[in-house]
Amino acid sequence: VRNIALIGLPGTGKSSVGRRLAEILGWPFLDTDELIESRYEASIHDLFRSRGESAFRDIEATLLAKLTRSGRGVLATGGGVVVRESNLARLRQWGWVIALVARPEVLAQRLGSADHLPLVASDNPASSLARLWAERAPKYLSADLVLETSTLDVDDIVRRILGFLAEREELEISVSTASTKYPVRIGVGNLGLIGYHTLFTGCTGLAALVTTPSLDRRFGDSVRESLRAAGLKPTTFLLPSGELAKAWSTVGRLYGRLLQEGVDPSCAVLAFGPEELGDAAGFVAATYMRGIPLLRLPTGLLAQLDSCIGGKVALNHPRAKNLIGTLHHPRLVLVDVSLASYPGLRALRAGLAEAVKYAVIADPTLLEFLEASLNALLQADPTALRELIARCLAIKARIVSADEHGEGPRLALNYGHTFAHALETATAYRRFPHGEAVAIGMTLEARLGCVLGITDPQVLERQTDLLRRIGLPTHFSGVAPAKLLDALLQDKKRRNGRLRFALPTRPGSFQLLDDVPPRVLQQLLNPDSPPPAP
Amino acid sequence: VRNIALIGLPGTGKSSVGRRLAEILGWPFLDTDELIESRYEASIHDLFRSRGESAFRDIEATLLAKLTRSGRGVLATGGGVVVRESNLARLRQWGWVIALVARPEVLAQRLGSADHLPLVASDNPASSLARLWAERAPKYLSADLVLETSTLDVDDIVRRILGFLAEREELEISVSTASTKYPVRIGVGNLGLIGYHTLFTGCTGLAALVTTPSLDRRFGDSVRESLRAAGLKPTTFLLPSGELAKAWSTVGRLYGRLLQEGVDPSCAVLAFGPEELGDAAGFVAATYMRGIPLLRLPTGLLAQLDSCIGGKVALNHPRAKNLIGTLHHPRLVLVDVSLASYPGLRALRAGLAEAVKYAVIADPTLLEFLEASLNALLQADPTALRELIARCLAIKARIVSADEHGEGPRLALNYGHTFAHALETATAYRRFPHGEAVAIGMTLEARLGCVLGITDPQVLERQTDLLRRIGLPTHFSGVAPAKLLDALLQDKKRRNGRLRFALPTRPGSFQLLDDVPPRVLQQLLNPDSPPPAP
Repeated sequence: VRNIALIGLPGTGKSSVGRRLAEILGWPFLDTDELIESRYEASIHDLFRSRGESAFRDIEATLLAKLTRSGRGVLATGGGVVVRESNLARLRQWGWVIALVARPEVLAQRLGSADHLPLVASDNPASSLARLWAERAPKYLSADLVLETSTLDVDDIVRRILGFLAEREELEISVSTASTKYPVRIGVGNLGLIGYHTLFTGCTGLAALVTTPSLDRRFGDSVRESLRAAGLKPTTFLLPSGELAKAWSTVGRLYGRLLQEGVDPSCAVLAFGPEELGDAAGFVAATYMRGIPLLRLPTGLLAQLDSCIGGKVALNHPRAKNLIGTLHHPRLVLVDVSLASYPGLRALRAGLAEAVKYAVIADPTLLEFLEASLNALLQADPTALRELIARCLAIKARIVSADEHGEGPRLALNYGHTFAHALETATAYRRFPHGEAVAIGMTLEARLGCVLGITDPQVLERQTDLLRRIGLPTHFSGVAPAKLLDALLQDKKRRNGRLRFALPTRPGSFQLLDDVPPRVLQQLLNPDSPPPAP
Repeated sequence: VRNIALIGLPGTGKSSVGRRLAEILGWPFLDTDELIESRYEASIHDLFRSRGESAFRDIEATLLAKLTRSGRGVLATGGGVVVRESNLARLRQWGWVIALVARPEVLAQRLGSADHLPLVASDNPASSLARLWAERAPKYLSADLVLETSTLDVDDIVRRILGFLAEREELEISVSTASTKYPVRIGVGNLGLIGYHTLFTGCTGLAALVTTPSLDRRFGDSVRESLRAAGLKPTTFLLPSGELAKAWSTVGRLYGRLLQEGVDPSCAVLAFGPEELGDAAGFVAATYMRGIPLLRLPTGLLAQLDSCIGGKVALNHPRAKNLIGTLHHPRLVLVDVSLASYPGLRALRAGLAEAVKYAVIADPTLLEFLEASLNALLQADPTALRELIARCLAIKARIVSADEHGEGPRLALNYGHTFAHALETATAYRRFPHGEAVAIGMTLEARLGCVLGITDPQVLERQTDLLRRIGLPTHFSGVAPAKLLDALLQDKKRRNGRLRFALPTRPGSFQLLDDVPPRVLQQLLNPDSPPPAP
């Protein structure tokens, strides 16, 4: 998110609004007048008197140049900062320029005895302010956002600014299903706007924040602050990290805690965390009191560009992952791109593996984008990530809208996952992080496609190149091929005897294929055994 | 269900079809020729020879008169039974008359050497059979159902007969919701047709019968037999009786067992039992593998006339009943009226209390029906019960269709239940069976309506009279009124501060009322304290 600079006449509330806004967003608060006063150990009034306005404006301009080079946060500026056009140009480049304005007589009343203000006559502040307004109004009114504050209090103003940020800072895509429609807002640092968004989805009262202990430690306070700022009452519920969040016993306790805290269908569940947490909290939202509103705040690139939409929620059973589940669409998905690589590089890699899948099966231009932007993506560049997430989600939204329950085109999303799943099962989910399993799975399936003459060998080549650049493996070791084949055939048995592959043809296209002969699979997994007959 | 008499020429398969049909329906199988042979210790052929056809027909007619007075089951008759019109008249009164017919040459081929048949010439059976057919065809063709069996095997014929029974024997009502539409079939003894119905809802393969141990002991075999007869493979899963079925831990194990047995979304869950079992099995069907088809086979009048439709399914949490739930509409509801009073009179009474509710709030003619038919209903008269169930379900279906999620008109279904729930809570669900709590609750709420001038006192009077005739209490004792008031106010707190009553006005109409002053409630519960100011 860009920085925020507040401009306006004295008395418009720049400092109090700036301070509150910074608090909610978790950003530093900067105030040019305060910084100058502390640097020069003198009040602005005294500096004006001792050095004259022009010298003061030089000091102010120098500070501003420095702040806009290296500073970050919410900045409250002195009222006269707009007098120099160069100052304004710097601020515009640095962030959003927001002007707070009010009628001079309102300002005069707010300021009371105005003897500390250099350009305001203490005997008639209203007329001084009216004169300043007449001079500067064109500058103030050129701001990105102008708020008339005469009848607003600090909280009102802050809420309007948050709303403005939400609109300007985020890419929005829309997911439509047979039964509902909801927005996905993708931004940088927009987690701080969650309160505002929650309010806008129609939830009132309690906001049930469900998250992991580490996310809570790191971001819980700012999320709660944002919810409070929107007039909501946050209550926090912690689920363990990883698959344990989805255990029947874990979730059983959560229902009781929600009831104890008074959560009811007028409230919302905010599922803040990676895919497992989204699954568990989503399942609870689907079934607590026969369903309460859900907002998803996915963390980690995989959840952000893939699992946060589609509505699938599920719990694990000791005998099978995701055995217990349903569909429950969120009211809103809020993706904060700055959490794409949380808690680390592995999260980013797993998401990128999934992005390669989307590119290979559905979008040749996405494949080109990945090839061109991979370095930026691996460095978690927010702009590149935002585009990537929006593009992947748009592909998934299109497929899911066409096929909510997953019998048709949605099967294409399984590309790489048949082998990945077998690999994970054969190693009891211990050896391969999901991203690695998917990378190996896609490589095997693309090779299968090549062997069968379905897949353009160029697809395999470009895919392998991308996966290697991401730092993902393209072949497996340490698992007996026979064990992998067993897991595959087990899977087949569970699916009514059908083992269906979605295999790429040329970049961006796929074909569904049933009944691959086991000897072809065996040959694929044992490159040393003799090749199958054509 | 009415009895079944099979008529037809020799070789049409009356005995084998009848035997199989009786097996599936769990009915006795009767065979006139067999009974005569064993009574006279001689073959039919010999009796014909020794006594002549006319004397044989007398024996046959006497047996038939006796059987149709006191017998019960599937009856295979001798081919010539139709010769006497009085026999046919008796059979028609006794049950469905089903004729199996086939071309004479097919019959001749089936019979092979026909020397045991009295009226069939062994040297040219086809021509004898053609002659018999010409004589008797008008009689056979006057049956309730005529099946041309030349190209059908026994199982085909049985399946068609079951289909015929299903259509003739059941009242069907249809429940429509925003998302789906399903039939409710209400019959007597139609549990034996469940296999046929399950097949018709599109389920193939495994049928997961979920039931209680006592229902399984009593009816499990015949249900499984019916499923097998339809070509399905039944597997049985037992849940404990009562609320324990709805415990998180109980249900957690069920998912694992379903997986172990290979149940998948091509199968169906058959929830066979009272309301708690329907809730638990329904919840599992809603969430196992993200939802698999559900058929409800409610037992006990309460489940049959009320909870089996609407789609609400739920589990209990130690802190609250039904806390964990969702909506999952069944594909079919099959109500076997002969299970309305299972396991005993208490089940019947609880259902009748609910029926009084429907009458009072929604249908003045149902109130009259209850008053007129209560004796028959209390004796579990199937015809009266069938009408009652169909009428109550039709009312609920109408209300539910209009208001799937229960915010509007569905609230009328709460009549009597606000107080009933408080009474159950205040006594930890131990003291009052649900029917009694509802009876007391309706009395209190009708009295409240009278006090407030909303309810016609005649409604209270007729309601009280009905409840007493059912054998239900109309006032409570052994609970401190203060405790009951507490439970009410607790409930109010949980509902966002709203305590909403649906109160009858005149018979068949109601009015929603918020914010009854606590002192009015207090006075209602403490008839000895001074009356509230008007």
